[in-house]
This record gives sequence, C-alpha cells and structure tokens, in this order.
Amino acid sequence: MRATVIHGPNDIRVEEVPDAAVRHPTDAVVRVVLACICGSDLWAYRGVAARQPGQRIGHEFLGVVEEVGSEVSGVRPGDLVVAPFVWSDGVCDYCREGLQTSCPHGGFWGEPGSDGGQGEAVRVPFADGTLVGLPAEAASDERLLTALLALSDVMATGHHAALAAGVRPGSTVAVVGDGAVGLCGVLAARRLGAERIVALGRHQARTEIARSFGATDVVAERGDEAIAAVKELTGGQGAHAVLEAVGTEQSMRTALSIARDGGAVGYVGVPHGGSAGVDIRQMFDRNVALRGGVAPARAYIPELLADVLAGRIDPSPVFDRTVDLDGVPDGYRAMDDRSALKVRIKP
Amino acid sequence: MRATVIHGPNDIRVEEVPDAAVRHPTDAVVRVVLACICGSDLWAYRGVAARQPGQRIGHEFLGVVEEVGSEVSGVRPGDLVVAPFVWSDGVCDYCREGLQTSCPHGGFWGEPGSDGGQGEAVRVPFADGTLVGLPAEAASDERLLTALLALSDVMATGHHAALAAGVRPGSTVAVVGDGAVGLCGVLAARRLGAERIVALGRHQARTEIARSFGATDVVAERGDEAIAAVKELTGGQGAHAVLEAVGTEQSMRTALSIARDGGAVGYVGVPHGGSAGVDIRQMFDRNVALRGGVAPARAYIPELLADVLAGRIDPSPVFDRTVDLDGVPDGYRAMDDRSALKVRIKP
Repeated sequence: MRATVIHGPNDIRVEEVPDAAVRHPTDAVVRVVLACICGSDLWAYRGVAARQPGQRIGHEFLGVVEEVGSEVSGVRPGDLVVAPFVWSDGVCDYCREGLQTSCPHGGFWGEPGSDGGQGEAVRVPFADGTLVGLPAEAASDERLLTALLALSDVMATGHHAALAAGVRPGSTVAVVGDGAVGLCGVLAARRLGAERIVALGRHQARTEIARSFGATDVVAERGDEAIAAVKELTGGQGAHAVLEAVGTEQSMRTALSIARDGGAVGYVGVPHGGSAGVDIRQMFDRNVALRGGVAPARAYIPELLADVLAGRIDPSPVFDRTVDLDGVPDGYRAMDDRSALKVRIKP
Repeated sequence: MRATVIHGPNDIRVEEVPDAAVRHPTDAVVRVVLACICGSDLWAYRGVAARQPGQRIGHEFLGVVEEVGSEVSGVRPGDLVVAPFVWSDGVCDYCREGLQTSCPHGGFWGEPGSDGGQGEAVRVPFADGTLVGLPAEAASDERLLTALLALSDVMATGHHAALAAGVRPGSTVAVVGDGAVGLCGVLAARRLGAERIVALGRHQARTEIARSFGATDVVAERGDEAIAAVKELTGGQGAHAVLEAVGTEQSMRTALSIARDGGAVGYVGVPHGGSAGVDIRQMFDRNVALRGGVAPARAYIPELLADVLAGRIDPSPVFDRTVDLDGVPDGYRAMDDRSALKVRIKP
C-alpha cells in the first residue's frame, strides 16, 4: 500500500510500504476514507519535534473496517469508524476514567512500528478500545464525513481546551490561536454556553470562521497589544477561561496574561516553548490555573458525534483544501506557509 | 507602640513606631493578642524577597478591636477578631466572588505605609471587608485562640491548596512540605474526605503532627527517591491531588512528578524557584493541572472557624514555640534554622 513517510525536516514522501495487516488478535485494519494534516504534524515537518527518518505520519483518519482480529467484537468488516489520535486498550483504569491518553498500552499513530493515518490503510491496535462506530449513511454525505473527521483530533482537542479552561454557561472566553484547534475551541466554548468569545487572530479567512463558530469579538493585535485589547473588551479583568491552542512561549504568555484573576488557561497546543512562557509568579498572585494537555479524544467522541449528527455543531469549515495521497507533500507546504488552514486527504 | 521592623537580611528589630490609629473612616485599630511568624516571612528574612529597609513585617494576627472609623459597622470596640493575611474592601467583584486576594483595594500587612501583624496594634483598612469576628469566650481559652490564629494564614492556605488540588472524598493525596502550611494541608485534605494522605517529610516532630492531622503514610526520602516512594505507595500511579507548600524549584518538580495522570497540583508555596520546576511537557503529556496561588483566607475563615469552634479541626499543634515582642528576632532565627516549626507571638 502507499502511505506518507517523514524522512527529515521538510522531507515528506508518499511511498510503497508493507500492507496494513492484523498482527494481534485485538487489531483491526481500517481502509482510510478521509485523513488530514494536523498543525502538530508541522512540528515534525519543521524539525522541531524529532522523528526517526522513515517514520510514518498522520494521526487523524476515518474509514471502513476491512479485517478484524479474533478478539475484536466491537467493530466488524464494513463498519464506518473514526479513530482518535491515540489508540488505547479500553479496559485499564485510565481508559475507564476517560483519560485514554494515559493508557499504558496506548500509542500515537505513526510512532515507530505503527501505521500513520496519512495512508491507504492503518493497522489499529486494540480496535475495541480505540475505534468509534459511525452511522453507515454518513459515508455518502461528504460534508458530514468531513465534520466527523474533525472528531479524531481538532474538535476533541478544542473541546478539551474548553473543559480544561472551565468554560461554563455565561463565561467570558478568549481563544489564543486561529488554527483548526483554536477555531474548534471557539465552537466548543459556544457549545458549552459561553456568553462572550474573543478570538485572537489576524488572518481574515480564519477569523470569519471563528465568527461563524460563535466568536463575538476578534482581536487582531499581538503580544502586549493583544493583552491590552482583551483587557479592554472585558472591563479590565480578562477572560474567565482562556484556550491556548498554539504551544509557543509567546502564546502561553499571552494566554496567562489575558486570564481573569481566579480563571484558568486550558492549554492544548503541544508545548514547544518549554516552560518559559509559564509565568508562575503571575499565576500565583492572580490565582490563574493551568490545565490541559493531550486531549483524550476517545472519551469525547461519543458526545461530540451526537452533536455533529444532530447538526448542533459542524466543524467541517476548518478544512479548506483537499489533496490525494500524491498531494500530501504539497499539503504540508501549504499548511506550513499558512496558505491552507487544514488539509483534507482523500487517499 | 512597639512593632517588628525588617531592616535587611537577617536584621529583624523590635522598635518604637507611631501608634496605630484610624486614618480613614473605614479603618479599625486592633490591639494584637496573638500573632506569629510565617514561613513566608523567612523569604524576606533571608533576603530572597526584597523589602524596603524599615518596612513592618508580620501578616497573621488576632486581637481586640480598640477603635473604629465612622463608616465601620461590622465590628465594634471590644470585639475579638481575626484578620486574614491580606485586607480587602469586601464589596468589589472579586471580594463578592470569594477571591479577596485580587481586590483592587486590597493589600498585604507590612507593605510600605501599613502596619504589620508582629506588633502591639494594627491599623486595619476596610475593617468591614477584612476582619472576621470571633466568639468573645475564645479569649479565655488559649488552645482555642491559638487554633483560631492559624485561620489568618496557614490553615486557610492549606485549605486553598487542598481545594486547588481537587481533593475529594476518597482521594489519594500527597503533601510536599512539612512546614505549618503543609501540615495544615494534611488537616484540610482529611477534612475534605481524603482516603489516603502521604506526607513528605523527614523531621520527626513534624511528621508526628502530620500523622495526628490525618497522614496515613510518611515518605522521608527526597528528590527522585521521594518520587519513587510515592509511586510505590500508590500502585505506580501517583496521587490524585498533590499539595505543594514550599515554593522552590525542587518542590514543584517533585509535586508535579508524584501527581497521577489527570490529577492536579495545588500550590501555595510562594514561588521562589521561578518557573524552572514547572515541567510543562510532563504536565501536558499526563494532563496534570497546576492550580493555586495566594489563598483568599477571608473567603475560607467562616467555614473553617465553624469547624475549629466545633472541635472538628485543631491546627494549634503547628505552633511549637512562644515569644514576646522582644523575642521576635530569636523566633526568626529559630524558624530559619528549623529548630522551631512556627513561632507564636504574645505582644
């Protein structure tokens, strides 16, 4: 089969690789119908996050089950399924508590020895614990299918940020980051009842999506000017809940600074700025909490899926370009230079 | 009157200062019956926290109201009262929400222009917002009065750590720091229903208090060995809730490392290690939250007071030495060399 392989910084190739196959009785093989490129893939693409040359890449996909191992009972060949961006056994303490990202048997698509999502098919470990079934009729509805693809990561991650930031009905929320996760954070905050949502961003196509997702205000400034603008919009106090969806030192610094005293920053941007942006003294003096991390998408997919199917949320607008497998390297380039927001892959 | 003044590192003196007096209609003057020295005073004593030479010091006291300004209606001369370690106006958004430490009119005892608690009397700004009345009969019960003194800071701060760490009935808790705040954190965790409480400390007199306050286990190791010991006690997972009551880089590093995935560190140690101990990548990967800060003691005193009066909690054992005003410099030395846990002052 063909799949996306990362050989080094800026070196993404689509190559022939061994066919995905059941290796353990708890495995399933899923033929990929839709996959996509994540903002977090760019850390590897840019060489900031280390990868072994030849590792697969891509951690967001949905598709049709092709084959299952002898111990798989939750899905059957022919089922339409979505995978969260980590696999998990479904039976350990953490999985039962809804923190599947801490499953001791879990793993991340594309890690050495595993398939990545940006390919023709994927071997799914612990299929019963990992995969979530989708209604078969979704297969013929491209808009719906695209919205469901967002559940594998960005919508679930935006939701995690909103929960971690403590968004409640009536909250004033600020969202740092106008990528797909930040935009889904806006959608998640509105879904949780936020009254006011300030989106920080200056890229018009993105801020328009933010407004359509529920942002009531847009702040185009950066750094200290952004902080001042958010303070001004919030009576000098800042936002109860701040969603940090970038992961740099500057974004963390901004996020903590625009949180209201006693509020919280829900951070889901993979932290690449180290702890430098975490101003602990400011957090201490103002009782600003820092919560978040890698989103247990598997825990959130069922409830978010219900809302997507019911038409209450539609994250599909975050996808603004589509490529086939041959187009994946171009897709990375487009996301890297920000000419594309999020690239969908139809293998 | 006489009061404690800090002139520089290791230079604490008791001197004649202007009498405390009502300056604003919202002021009261409180004659100090009991005060004490705080572990956080040692940061100033050691020169780590900057003070202007000649600043007053001491932020924990209870006493009898001597005089009130014309706009004070909540307390009267003769009332026995306790002060939280910051004053606050009692009417702003933050005060009404219970985050009095963020009151825009608030301040910290001993800051330039204000009296400190370690003296004969204190001018209390915003007396109605700040002071909490105590039953008059407590004045004749020295043990009870000592327990009530702990409400001004250490008991309220231990409670804040426990709340911030999310202690719930059944929680497994670990407490980093065997000072008075850490010990009160043990008491607070037990009060909130923790099932298992691991106290980290190696000073026998202190760990004995920890056990009497509800600690089920004591870990005497430090650093990596302490982390391993807590992991071993908790089935390899760590504690749901970790109370950090020190404020150094090492203590924060230990606290985050012994938190269970998905758990939280409630930190109340004034952070003097900067953000170096905040391992954001570890927090991210394991969804460990960091919450806490300066405790809004004023918000907690009423409920904690009720429990002290009812005999449900007794933090008085954290005081292990008593001095008069002349003995205050000796008290600082004793706390600095850890020969005293917490020094009570009878002016």
